[in-house]
Amino acid sequence: MKRLQMFGLLNRDMEALEKELYRSVQGDDALLEETSLHLLKAGGKRLRPVFVLMGGKFGRYDLDKLKRVAIPLELIHSASLVHDDVIDDADTRRGEPTVKAKWGDKIAMYTGDYIYAKALGITAELPNPRIHQILSKAMVEMSVGEMEQIRDFFNSEQSVRHYLRRIRRKTALLIAISCQLGALAAEAPTEAARLLYSYGYNVGMAFQIRDDLLDLSGTEKQIGKPPGSDMRQGNITLPVIYTLQDSRLRSQLLEELELIRSGRATVGRAIDLILSGEGISRSEELASRYINKALHVLDQLPSNRTKGNLREIAYFVTGRAY
Amino acid sequence: MKRLQMFGLLNRDMEALEKELYRSVQGDDALLEETSLHLLKAGGKRLRPVFVLMGGKFGRYDLDKLKRVAIPLELIHSASLVHDDVIDDADTRRGEPTVKAKWGDKIAMYTGDYIYAKALGITAELPNPRIHQILSKAMVEMSVGEMEQIRDFFNSEQSVRHYLRRIRRKTALLIAISCQLGALAAEAPTEAARLLYSYGYNVGMAFQIRDDLLDLSGTEKQIGKPPGSDMRQGNITLPVIYTLQDSRLRSQLLEELELIRSGRATVGRAIDLILSGEGISRSEELASRYINKALHVLDQLPSNRTKGNLREIAYFVTGRAY
Repeated sequence: MKRLQMFGLLNRDMEALEKELYRSVQGDDALLEETSLHLLKAGGKRLRPVFVLMGGKFGRYDLDKLKRVAIPLELIHSASLVHDDVIDDADTRRGEPTVKAKWGDKIAMYTGDYIYAKALGITAELPNPRIHQILSKAMVEMSVGEMEQIRDFFNSEQSVRHYLRRIRRKTALLIAISCQLGALAAEAPTEAARLLYSYGYNVGMAFQIRDDLLDLSGTEKQIGKPPGSDMRQGNITLPVIYTLQDSRLRSQLLEELELIRSGRATVGRAIDLILSGEGISRSEELASRYINKALHVLDQLPSNRTKGNLREIAYFVTGRAY
Repeated sequence: MKRLQMFGLLNRDMEALEKELYRSVQGDDALLEETSLHLLKAGGKRLRPVFVLMGGKFGRYDLDKLKRVAIPLELIHSASLVHDDVIDDADTRRGEPTVKAKWGDKIAMYTGDYIYAKALGITAELPNPRIHQILSKAMVEMSVGEMEQIRDFFNSEQSVRHYLRRIRRKTALLIAISCQLGALAAEAPTEAARLLYSYGYNVGMAFQIRDDLLDLSGTEKQIGKPPGSDMRQGNITLPVIYTLQDSRLRSQLLEELELIRSGRATVGRAIDLILSGEGISRSEELASRYINKALHVLDQLPSNRTKGNLREIAYFVTGRAY
């Protein structure tokens, strides 16, 4: 899962950042330190910090300033995962027991609150109010997206548009602002920040679609949790929606979903149904369209080494093994 | 519960603030709006906004600036209540069903996250980074305090000092910074802001001790929830600690606490034991000491009409019916 630390340019900075990430949740309370570090040390791609640093390359790159954006973004992402695992009743993440599984819902809830608060404490050092505004707006959108997700559990009537709006809030927005805030913290030109936002948004959308695909077609070893976890908890993702649009598969899949909802079936047969149709390939296609948009946006950015790296990341998202 | 809106000076501003408080959680998502407004409209004393406005009277009073501090503080307090009610399994608050009771733990968790995020969105408009730093630090302390509370559930060995440290984090700090941030937002002299912080800290300590007393000696009608709720959930408060120090009552109370913990007894007999000893009067005495400190601090502030109001609030906290 450390595949994103592949750019020689950033390796040293990313290592420094990793250490600081751990330090950022230490020293307040022994239990909060333990629960917070449990998740952080389980790994993760650090996609958001990587994007911040890369965004910073389009302005005056200053690690000290950039880390005050990169660390909070990774912390906000982590806090949302801790809370999501409570909602989803998830037992494993990144191949490790979740905070919720190890310490229970209540401690997981306060661990999330604590990590959010620490994130804000770091951004508070930044004098640029625009950065605070962007960050807090993204946090509002994330909680709206998460609420939509709860409300849409087992809602088999939801449209593709509905799904896309939800993943925009849940994932794409935070990746978009990672790119943008990196640029802003480095005082890059406004136009570069705008393009980086758009790049991040499109990569983020593709990334979440791939993640949702992987949940259905990956192995437990690949994804760090049992396949079909989304469906088990009622999270209707893009391949499911596409399969429900297929008149040959719709009624069978609806039946399976009802059995899963009522606890009378595991997800095995539903996954087989989805794999038998075009839901996977159509989802892949849509993810590729987002990647193409991201690449198109990149063309408009000034040429530098980072631009090549951003292109590689886009390809990397396209090529995630599943 | 609207007794703190007693100061003619602030009534109009507090009404404007109340409306803006409701507006602050509207327009993002129908369900989040409903769950957030459910708590806000159930009332509350708006102690933190009142203190912000009063703090502002020691500088250049500007409602427009002050509300950007007052509303976030009330929102942060409200969000913490929503999360606390999940932890405490509380069914009623302010005489109404809790968000947790009405919508369940998961929706309550995201409602809290949402309200926190909205709070930050409003402070983000303020250019003074010091205010952000103070606010985020208080949020960290609050989550540490809440974690301590979970860890200390049914811990009958905790000391008075331990209890005081916890309520400092859980309550007093947020009230202290309400006074301080009001002063800072109004660009009051540093010394006034420092004194106001100290006043708020002492009033906050007294307030929480009184609140904990009320939980044991109030009626359900007075406190908006069944008496003994704290003890039922394992929250060992000051009168309990003092009673455990009384050799005539200690072993009986320990026995009752164990029965309550294991669900074999209600809190009735434990309350009777506490009321029979000196736990209540000793707690009242300590609360009074904090109030006296608060009044002493006030003496050092420049004389104005607000100073009289702050004195009245201190007396009001002292005189809470129980």
